[in-house]
Amino acid sequence: MFSLMCSLAAMPRFRWPAASSCSTSSSRSPRFQSAASASGRPGGSSAVTAVKTAHPDKIVFADMKTMDAGELEADIAFTAGADLVSVLGSADDSTIAGAVKAAKAHNKGIVVDLIGFEDKVGRANKARALGAKFVEMHAGLDEQAKPGYNLDVLLSAGEKARVPFSVAGGVNLSTIEAVQRSGADVAVVGGSIYSADDPAVAAKELKAAIV
Amino acid sequence: MFSLMCSLAAMPRFRWPAASSCSTSSSRSPRFQSAASASGRPGGSSAVTAVKTAHPDKIVFADMKTMDAGELEADIAFTAGADLVSVLGSADDSTIAGAVKAAKAHNKGIVVDLIGFEDKVGRANKARALGAKFVEMHAGLDEQAKPGYNLDVLLSAGEKARVPFSVAGGVNLSTIEAVQRSGADVAVVGGSIYSADDPAVAAKELKAAIV
Repeated sequence: MFSLMCSLAAMPRFRWPAASSCSTSSSRSPRFQSAASASGRPGGSSAVTAVKTAHPDKIVFADMKTMDAGELEADIAFTAGADLVSVLGSADDSTIAGAVKAAKAHNKGIVVDLIGFEDKVGRANKARALGAKFVEMHAGLDEQAKPGYNLDVLLSAGEKARVPFSVAGGVNLSTIEAVQRSGADVAVVGGSIYSADDPAVAAKELKAAIV
Repeated sequence: MFSLMCSLAAMPRFRWPAASSCSTSSSRSPRFQSAASASGRPGGSSAVTAVKTAHPDKIVFADMKTMDAGELEADIAFTAGADLVSVLGSADDSTIAGAVKAAKAHNKGIVVDLIGFEDKVGRANKARALGAKFVEMHAGLDEQAKPGYNLDVLLSAGEKARVPFSVAGGVNLSTIEAVQRSGADVAVVGGSIYSADDPAVAAKELKAAIV
């Protein structure tokens, strides 16, 4: 099943009305996900707990982007209430393995974020072999801002890798159909929702575009 | 000048007595640095402000390990009071360049952390070309835990790169002489101080070992 994840990670500041519109307009899609960043934003793991407490029926993704101490960091986020925790693909294999160990202990999942990683297909397969639930074909905001950036590179990598994957890197109303067609399991939407004049309307429109 | 930086980044929880012993036992070395992690720990940027306010004479290093939105994230940390901010070496060049842009606006510096990066020598030179103040030859806790790990790999990379560098990856009383001899500008010490029975004594002993 293809689902939509609203990312709060890139938000300059948490705007709770937007967060709320992400997670409460999900009546038609039980896997419509709410994402909380546990790193680099005020609140840390307590933000994860707050989101999970407010929306216990939603899958909460703590986008830790862990680079070291995989087991320790993932355990903190799972204990706080996260269902999914991310580790960077550029982290050492042992860091991914450690995070997977924590995920198994909590009966939860690890997402390996391939931002900045050149050989996304190879790393995606390695991440799955290490026990990741899925990988994220991800181009950062800085990469998206470069001339000639095209989301298709991510979709193509996902198709080639043949592992469960999400796509993050400029998903919007005009690209979400191609994302779904690529075989992605999750479309991660940030700016298209939180920068919209009406985030709730934007989220609903994106959901409606999923077939 | 060779200096010592006490890292709070890897601490499971901030232990302020240890932090305090890092920064107040610095009478003999004006550049004895205090490090604060602004990511993944409760407090976020307010932790940076708290450390800088308590110790305005110290160089505060916000170990953000930024992977995207380099200018935005570095600006947040510099505005909070950081003197140095780290960006991951595995981040896109444009992310490092963006963080350097923020550093220049604040008249501060960017450190490029080479954790997880295989070609540390090549990346170190690229980071300097992009405007980083120095690079960190860094092996994470997970990498250090692997059989056969040896700090010498980092020292050798630093010697070869011929750019200003710090070393992080198991610096302790028995290795700090070799770190200094390698030409490193900064020795980053975590566990050897915060896991010591008496962190203040451990910090003093490390400082005394610097010639």
